[in-house]
Amino acid sequence: MLDVTTLPLPRLTEVGPRDGFQNETAVVPTEAKVEFIDALSGSGVREISAGAFGAQLLGPQLADSTEVFENIRRKEGVQYLALVLDEAGLDAALEAEVDKVEVLCSPSEAYSQKVLDAPIAQTLERLRPIVNRAWKERLPSRAGVAAAFQCPYQGTGVKPEAVVAVVDRLRAMGVAEFSLCDTVGSASPQEVRALLDLLLKRVGPEQVFLHFHDTYGMALANALAAWTEYGVAGFDASCGGVGGCPYAPGVGGNVATEDLAFAFLASGAPMSVDFQKLRLAGKALVPHLGHSLPSHLSKIEFR
Amino acid sequence: MLDVTTLPLPRLTEVGPRDGFQNETAVVPTEAKVEFIDALSGSGVREISAGAFGAQLLGPQLADSTEVFENIRRKEGVQYLALVLDEAGLDAALEAEVDKVEVLCSPSEAYSQKVLDAPIAQTLERLRPIVNRAWKERLPSRAGVAAAFQCPYQGTGVKPEAVVAVVDRLRAMGVAEFSLCDTVGSASPQEVRALLDLLLKRVGPEQVFLHFHDTYGMALANALAAWTEYGVAGFDASCGGVGGCPYAPGVGGNVATEDLAFAFLASGAPMSVDFQKLRLAGKALVPHLGHSLPSHLSKIEFR
Repeated sequence: MLDVTTLPLPRLTEVGPRDGFQNETAVVPTEAKVEFIDALSGSGVREISAGAFGAQLLGPQLADSTEVFENIRRKEGVQYLALVLDEAGLDAALEAEVDKVEVLCSPSEAYSQKVLDAPIAQTLERLRPIVNRAWKERLPSRAGVAAAFQCPYQGTGVKPEAVVAVVDRLRAMGVAEFSLCDTVGSASPQEVRALLDLLLKRVGPEQVFLHFHDTYGMALANALAAWTEYGVAGFDASCGGVGGCPYAPGVGGNVATEDLAFAFLASGAPMSVDFQKLRLAGKALVPHLGHSLPSHLSKIEFR
Repeated sequence: MLDVTTLPLPRLTEVGPRDGFQNETAVVPTEAKVEFIDALSGSGVREISAGAFGAQLLGPQLADSTEVFENIRRKEGVQYLALVLDEAGLDAALEAEVDKVEVLCSPSEAYSQKVLDAPIAQTLERLRPIVNRAWKERLPSRAGVAAAFQCPYQGTGVKPEAVVAVVDRLRAMGVAEFSLCDTVGSASPQEVRALLDLLLKRVGPEQVFLHFHDTYGMALANALAAWTEYGVAGFDASCGGVGGCPYAPGVGGNVATEDLAFAFLASGAPMSVDFQKLRLAGKALVPHLGHSLPSHLSKIEFR
């Protein structure tokens, strides 16, 4: 049997307050966001993507990030991240005292054009001043690499070589971490292996985060395969599975933090996560979101 | 990267018409069952558990199995199974010309007492005349081993040694195949490894079927781990995920046939399953079941 004690301890980055809310139709009130983030930091989550800053804002869902950062109770040992969209956004993020800067790009030309409004090369150049200045301010940068497996706008799959090419450019700029997103949610462990085979020749496993969507039900299979076979231990997840799938209304998107934590715990990793607190944090969002949560654990009645 | 061409081709046993319907609240009309089974055999599924026979019937959901078997169109190359509960049930199953006999037991004393109304030893002895006579009639027997990982009625986990002890008794009777059920739906790949490490010392991988519930979202992770790491290629699944979880209303139970087939296909196994036909087969049940299907693929709109 696999000896899991030799594997690195899984590290979960909670993305519900930014990526999750961004993809919800409803606008969650600022106070509820602050309560959600504080509940997350109290549940054992060590890294939380808490907002977004920049002129080209992503929608009304994230317009209150300055207020959110002002009102959360910073917990010792927890890192608070924010997506930064431009240099003005970086000013606001520095003002908000974020712990890490997130930037966005994609190895898919179609995705870059459609979502980021420019060709890949141009979207990457836009990131350079942000990453450079963040570095001078001693803030690490993490790149979200959207559509790293399949692309909702490109007819065919995205090649691992294309992902690695983008990662190489980002590394040269000084980006420290890479979150590879299965935006469509159809990636299989075999596609994960194909990407990691190539990617881990360039970056260490500790620099890699995998951001799986559970749209086709394979998120946990992918995460466990990456962890057990490649020693990749960084994963993005959203409490309750908030966020849905941006390309298919009603369909699950982000894998749920509690589902992923349970999968690791059941696989022998000593996860120090309070499941009851995570469940309550998600449950408190339901009236604001206007729909039930897609996570598996939220549907199970525990005795 | 893993070379999947060295792995045995996955074999799926469709359990919706028996195990699935048995756990639904609604009673599906006979005609709809017949249409469902014929749609399944037309979609590329090669083995279908189509009904149950016996005096102690499992409920009104399966009371019409004789009529179902009389009316389905037998498709060349497809095996039609039925659960047999007693010797009178075997008479009816022989009359119905089933291709394989299913019997039920559990390695959990609490489950055996509660669901099968007797201690383990006694439930196994009840199976002996059924399996013996089926063997004389040249019909293979397959045992469903309920609560093979966790038990909903026993406080703690079910030990792999207890599963193997039951399997040993069944082998001695002449049972050819063993379907190990994660009745609670919380098993992790690590629990699957613990069981298969022990079980495959006694039986060949081709004799093993794994029957996963997706209650905690780990069904596909478990199936892919068993396949890639142990060469176990037999899996039970229900079209649309029909059946739910018998212990938690509204929660997903049986992993969906289409989700499992997609996971194998995306992992490189050449599955000859018609996804569109499977989807339509499940969709036709919705008015009879009175609820939407829990499968992942049934929620995605394909273009």
